[in-house]
Amino acid sequence: MKQYQIAVIGSAGSEEYPYDKPLAAMFEAAEKIGQLLAVNKLIVVCGGKGGVMEAVSRGAKSAGGITVAEIAGLSRWAANDYIDVEIVTGDLAFRGPSQLIAMSDAVIALGGGSGTLQEICVAYRLQKPIILLRGFGGWVDKLSPVSFLDERRLVKFYQATTPENAVQKALSMLK
Amino acid sequence: MKQYQIAVIGSAGSEEYPYDKPLAAMFEAAEKIGQLLAVNKLIVVCGGKGGVMEAVSRGAKSAGGITVAEIAGLSRWAANDYIDVEIVTGDLAFRGPSQLIAMSDAVIALGGGSGTLQEICVAYRLQKPIILLRGFGGWVDKLSPVSFLDERRLVKFYQATTPENAVQKALSMLK
Amino acid sequence: MKQYQIAVIGSAGSEEYPYDKPLAAMFEAAEKIGQLLAVNKLIVVCGGKGGVMEAVSRGAKSAGGITVAEIAGLSRWAANDYIDVEIVTGDLAFRGPSQLIAMSDAVIALGGGSGTLQEICVAYRLQKPIILLRGFGGWVDKLSPVSFLDERRLVKFYQATTPENAVQKALSMLK
Amino acid sequence: MKQYQIAVIGSAGSEEYPYDKPLAAMFEAAEKIGQLLAVNKLIVVCGGKGGVMEAVSRGAKSAGGITVAEIAGLSRWAANDYIDVEIVTGDLAFRGPSQLIAMSDAVIALGGGSGTLQEICVAYRLQKPIILLRGFGGWVDKLSPVSFLDERRLVKFYQATTPENAVQKALSMLK
Repeated sequence: MKQYQIAVIGSAGSEEYPYDKPLAAMFEAAEKIGQLLAVNKLIVVCGGKGGVMEAVSRGAKSAGGITVAEIAGLSRWAANDYIDVEIVTGDLAFRGPSQLIAMSDAVIALGGGSGTLQEICVAYRLQKPIILLRGFGGWVDKLSPVSFLDERRLVKFYQATTPENAVQKALSMLK
Repeated sequence: MKQYQIAVIGSAGSEEYPYDKPLAAMFEAAEKIGQLLAVNKLIVVCGGKGGVMEAVSRGAKSAGGITVAEIAGLSRWAANDYIDVEIVTGDLAFRGPSQLIAMSDAVIALGGGSGTLQEICVAYRLQKPIILLRGFGGWVDKLSPVSFLDERRLVKFYQATTPENAVQKALSMLK
Repeated sequence: MKQYQIAVIGSAGSEEYPYDKPLAAMFEAAEKIGQLLAVNKLIVVCGGKGGVMEAVSRGAKSAGGITVAEIAGLSRWAANDYIDVEIVTGDLAFRGPSQLIAMSDAVIALGGGSGTLQEICVAYRLQKPIILLRGFGGWVDKLSPVSFLDERRLVKFYQATTPENAVQKALSMLK
Repeated sequence: MKQYQIAVIGSAGSEEYPYDKPLAAMFEAAEKIGQLLAVNKLIVVCGGKGGVMEAVSRGAKSAGGITVAEIAGLSRWAANDYIDVEIVTGDLAFRGPSQLIAMSDAVIALGGGSGTLQEICVAYRLQKPIILLRGFGGWVDKLSPVSFLDERRLVKFYQATTPENAVQKALSMLK
C-alpha cells in the first residue's frame, strides 16, 4: 500500500512574500501539482501552513489523494483544512524541514524563501531528486541558472516550467 | 479531512520477546485494535516493523483505514506491507519514538519492551491519554498496577482488558 | 583534548519528587559524583535544570571540571549557574533526553521520575553502560532489582550504593 | 560560568571544495577566528570534521578556549583532535546543522557549500546574528551582495572582510 511520497515546497503566503510576481499564479500552479500527484497515486508531503502548502494540499484532495503535513510546534490541529496526516515536529526550523524531505522520494519546489532554501539544502545533501519549477520568483528562480548547489555536485537540479512538466519529471525519477 | 491519530505501541516480535505468554494472542489483539480504530475513522500511527506494529496495521487496512509508521534510519520502503505513509526518522532510539507519540491524540499500549516503555514515558510527559491493555506481559503489565508514572501525576493510566475496551477508552478521551 | 563524557541523570527537584526519602542526601550524592568525575577528567553531561542536575554540575565545577547541559526550548541562558556549555534541544521530551544520552560514554542514574526513565530506556537501547545508584527512591530503585530492561538483554544494569562506587564502575567500563 | 557560544561554519575541506580560491588562506582565517574567540572567552561551536571546522578549533585551543562540535552519526570520537565536547546528533543533514545554530549566540560563516547554506538558513530563521566573512568563495560570497535571505527581512547579514572584523562584529551583537 506504500506509495511514493513527493514533497512540494514553497512559500507560505503573501506576508512572507511581498513580491513583484502575482501570487495567484503560483498558488494555481501548486494546486495543479497537487492534483497531478494525486491522479498519479502519489502522496503529497508538505508543510501544513498556507500559501503553496495549502494550494498543493487542496489540489491533491480534489483528486482524491492523501496529504501529509509537517507542522512546527507540538500542538495538533495546526495544519490547513486539506491535510490528512499531521506530523508534529517541534520547534521552528529545527526538525520539520529535514523531516519532510527525508521521507520524500522527490522534491518539487516553486517560489520560496529561506525555509524553502533550507529544504532544498537538505534534499541536495540527502541526494533526493529536486525539480525546480521556475517562474514564480524566490529562491527557486535564483537557483535555477545553476545545476548544482555546490562543488560536490551531489545531485543535479531538474528544471521545469509548468506543473505538468514538474510532475512528469518527478515521476520519471522515482525508483 | 484531519482525523484523530492514535498511536498503538508494543513489541516488534518474538526475537525481542522470548516470553511465557503466547504471542499469537497479542498480535490478534493488536489486529483487532487496528480494525476498530479504522472503523471509527481514526488514523493508526505505529512503528513500521513487525509484531504488534504489523498486526495493528494489517487490521486497520482490512477495515479501510489509513496507517502511518515511523521507521528508524533514512531509507524508504523499510516499513511492513500495511503502511500507507512512512515517516523516516533517522537513528534508532533518537527521535522516532518521540515523533510517533507527539503526533498522536491518544496512545494504546500492549506488551512491550524498552522501546514501548520509552514511548510511554514520552506520552506521559506530553500528557497524552494512555491506555494500557493488560494481559500480554511486558512493560504494560508491569506498569498496570500503578496509576501514574511518577509522583508528578501528570496523566493517569487507563486500564483496559480487551481490544474493544481499549479503543472505546481511547475514543472517550479524544477532545 | 576529547575526554570521556558521562551523563548523570536524576530528578529535577522537590516539586516533582514529593517523596518519603530526604532529598538533601540525594543532592549530596549527586554533588559528590560531579566532583569525582571532574577529578578524573571526565566531562559531566546532564539536564540543565535544578535538583540532581544542579548538584552534579556544582560538584563538577568545584573540582575544575567541564559541564555540559541540554535544555528544552530554544532560549539560551536557561541552564543553572554551574553549566559551561548549553545545548538547546527544542521541545520538551522530544529530543533532549536522547541527545544527552547519545553523546555520553556511560550513564549514572539516581532517584528519577519519568524523564530519567525515558533516558534509561534510550541508554539501554543504545547499549551505553548504565550504573544505577540505589537508595534514593524513584525509578532507579524500582529498576535496581532487575538486571535488564527487557528480554532482549541488550545491556546489563550495574548497581552501585555509593557515589564513589558509581564513578568507579563508570570508569571501569569506558573503552 | 556560561559563556557566549559562537558558531563558526564553513567548508569541510578540499574534497568538497574544488575551488579557484586558495584553501590555505581560508583555513588560516578560520584559525585566526578561533584564536580571537578564545581570547575573548567565547566558546567555539562548529562541526567536528576537517577544513574550516578543524582550523577554527585548532585556533581556539591554541588560545586556551573551549570547543564544542556536532558530529553526524551516533559514534563517539569522530571529531577532529581539537574538540573538547562532542555532540552526537544522528543522521547527516537531519539535525546537526540546526542543533549547532540553535545553541549559538552568533554565527560567523566563511566559504561554504550546501551544509553551510543550510546552517545560514536556520540561523536566519532563528534570527541569530550572522556575519559573512567574504573573500573565500562559496555560498558566503554568493550571499554577501544581499542583506537579507528573503523578503521577510528577519535578520540582516553583517559583512566582514577580516577575521578581526568578523569577531569584533560578533562581539558587538551579543546581548
